[in-house]
Amino acid sequence: MQPFWPYIDALLPKGSPVPGIDLLCQMMRDYPARGGKGLRGQLLLECAAAFGVGKERALPLAAALELFQSWVLIHDDIEDASEERRGGPALHRLHGIPLAINAGDALHAYMWQAVLSSAVPGAAEEFLATVQRTAEGQHIELLWIRSGTWSVSSADYLQMVQLKTAHYTVVAPLRLGMLAAGVQPDARLLPAGLALGAAFQICDDALNLTGGPTYGKERAGDLLEGKRTLILLDWLASAGEADRQRALDWLGRPRAEKDQAGLAWLEGQLRGSGAVERAMEVAATEARRGLGILAEVWKAAPHPERTLALQETLAGLADRTH
Amino acid sequence: MQPFWPYIDALLPKGSPVPGIDLLCQMMRDYPARGGKGLRGQLLLECAAAFGVGKERALPLAAALELFQSWVLIHDDIEDASEERRGGPALHRLHGIPLAINAGDALHAYMWQAVLSSAVPGAAEEFLATVQRTAEGQHIELLWIRSGTWSVSSADYLQMVQLKTAHYTVVAPLRLGMLAAGVQPDARLLPAGLALGAAFQICDDALNLTGGPTYGKERAGDLLEGKRTLILLDWLASAGEADRQRALDWLGRPRAEKDQAGLAWLEGQLRGSGAVERAMEVAATEARRGLGILAEVWKAAPHPERTLALQETLAGLADRTH
Repeated sequence: MQPFWPYIDALLPKGSPVPGIDLLCQMMRDYPARGGKGLRGQLLLECAAAFGVGKERALPLAAALELFQSWVLIHDDIEDASEERRGGPALHRLHGIPLAINAGDALHAYMWQAVLSSAVPGAAEEFLATVQRTAEGQHIELLWIRSGTWSVSSADYLQMVQLKTAHYTVVAPLRLGMLAAGVQPDARLLPAGLALGAAFQICDDALNLTGGPTYGKERAGDLLEGKRTLILLDWLASAGEADRQRALDWLGRPRAEKDQAGLAWLEGQLRGSGAVERAMEVAATEARRGLGILAEVWKAAPHPERTLALQETLAGLADRTH
Repeated sequence: MQPFWPYIDALLPKGSPVPGIDLLCQMMRDYPARGGKGLRGQLLLECAAAFGVGKERALPLAAALELFQSWVLIHDDIEDASEERRGGPALHRLHGIPLAINAGDALHAYMWQAVLSSAVPGAAEEFLATVQRTAEGQHIELLWIRSGTWSVSSADYLQMVQLKTAHYTVVAPLRLGMLAAGVQPDARLLPAGLALGAAFQICDDALNLTGGPTYGKERAGDLLEGKRTLILLDWLASAGEADRQRALDWLGRPRAEKDQAGLAWLEGQLRGSGAVERAMEVAATEARRGLGILAEVWKAAPHPERTLALQETLAGLADRTH
């Protein structure tokens, strides 16, 4: 149970007198109720606390971030043709794509209700920017897949994941934490959050290949979905021409035609090539860079010792086991 | 060109230095730039004007209503498997479903930007409620289709279209017009708007069967999409068992298996049965009821004579040629 569930539980409708709408209520509650780490909300609360704000003031925004992630994941799972989420079938696999798109839209509106109920100046603008950046990153990734583009550099990948993941995972939680405290967000939160968010996504990519039973998503789903990960791009750049061509042929197939033997071969290639370890080194470097920038920011906090919990959570972004 | 285009044009990004994001910008602009009647924004401006507010104050909310319709239509066209919109291919037919879902989400956020920039007290709450009611109506309709439900009464249909169409088409424009004027929305706007919005949707259903070249959507698309319209429900209730079974067999097929001969037969049945005319009578009755309620509301306007343009637009909701 994530710590924001009681707030979300109270915010979302539990049912309806109109037949059929009970199912919509249940669909909106599904992903939030499945749990999740609540990492983004936690970062926000810890940052707000470091700047002297009690949980009560920051809670609506923390819950709004979790609602943001929930509606985005409903739609992303459709866009990526993902099959599993938080240990269960993706919402569209339970109820079909049309109802799931619609439930995501309804949940999007409840995110705004939480944002507006916070009455924190600047919070709405932060959410506007965060939705836009996240959609831009998702757009770039989907466009690569749709157009069959493999001429993707490490810099292209980093730019994409900064947009897709880093803004809503690190930049926005930290900035919103300061806004909740009535403090102008430090400009250095942006470069630091982008670096840490990229590190987080690289670890996520690695976990998708190596993750254990607590991972919650389909193992190797990224390969089935055609994701351009740093690990895969690294391997493609260094593979022999025959292996590279074999991989691209398999990756370019519709998901239903991706056979298990091809998947096992490609997984073996990636794991044996050192590409996972090299990507984790990039993640560690990005994380160190981000934490280094933030160390300066925390010095300016009114009580620097109160940033310790936050620093620990941030350090964990690139040191994940699930 | 709808009258809100200059505002929307200025609000939405025109391009991006990041490769690929130009396409996202273009996709967000596509439906608004195709035109559309701008009916909902017009109702809002005319209601605001009737209560003494200049166009400048109400324009962001009028544009927000048009942006609302644009992102909803992007998603609805996917959910309904619609092929045409505003005289062109539906957005997902141009760019695929994943990119189109994502562009709809990005546009949803720009709707909130317009709402918040209006700084009209109560407007955000009105949009929250409107998104929720619209999603509820869409959910009910999609659920009937997904579950193959045909035990739908006229009352069920009316409740569904009040949620799906009437709130965002009539109730919200009128209430937002009064809010823009700093006036507490009259409680009678709700029943009146629900009646007029239902009338509008019934006319839309009829136009889908009978519409000319300016209609903008695929003719008879509702039958191909399996929509439960009042016209179809009326015909099903009065048809002989063999015809009824033949129709239900055809309607229950996946869209790709719905043959033209079956469509032509069903269209002929519907047109020849008087069901279109009976539905239009229901629309006229609902419209009269709504206009009757509103006639009392306008008497309380500071300058009742300024409600004439608004009354004309409202009367046109159930008297449509396109």
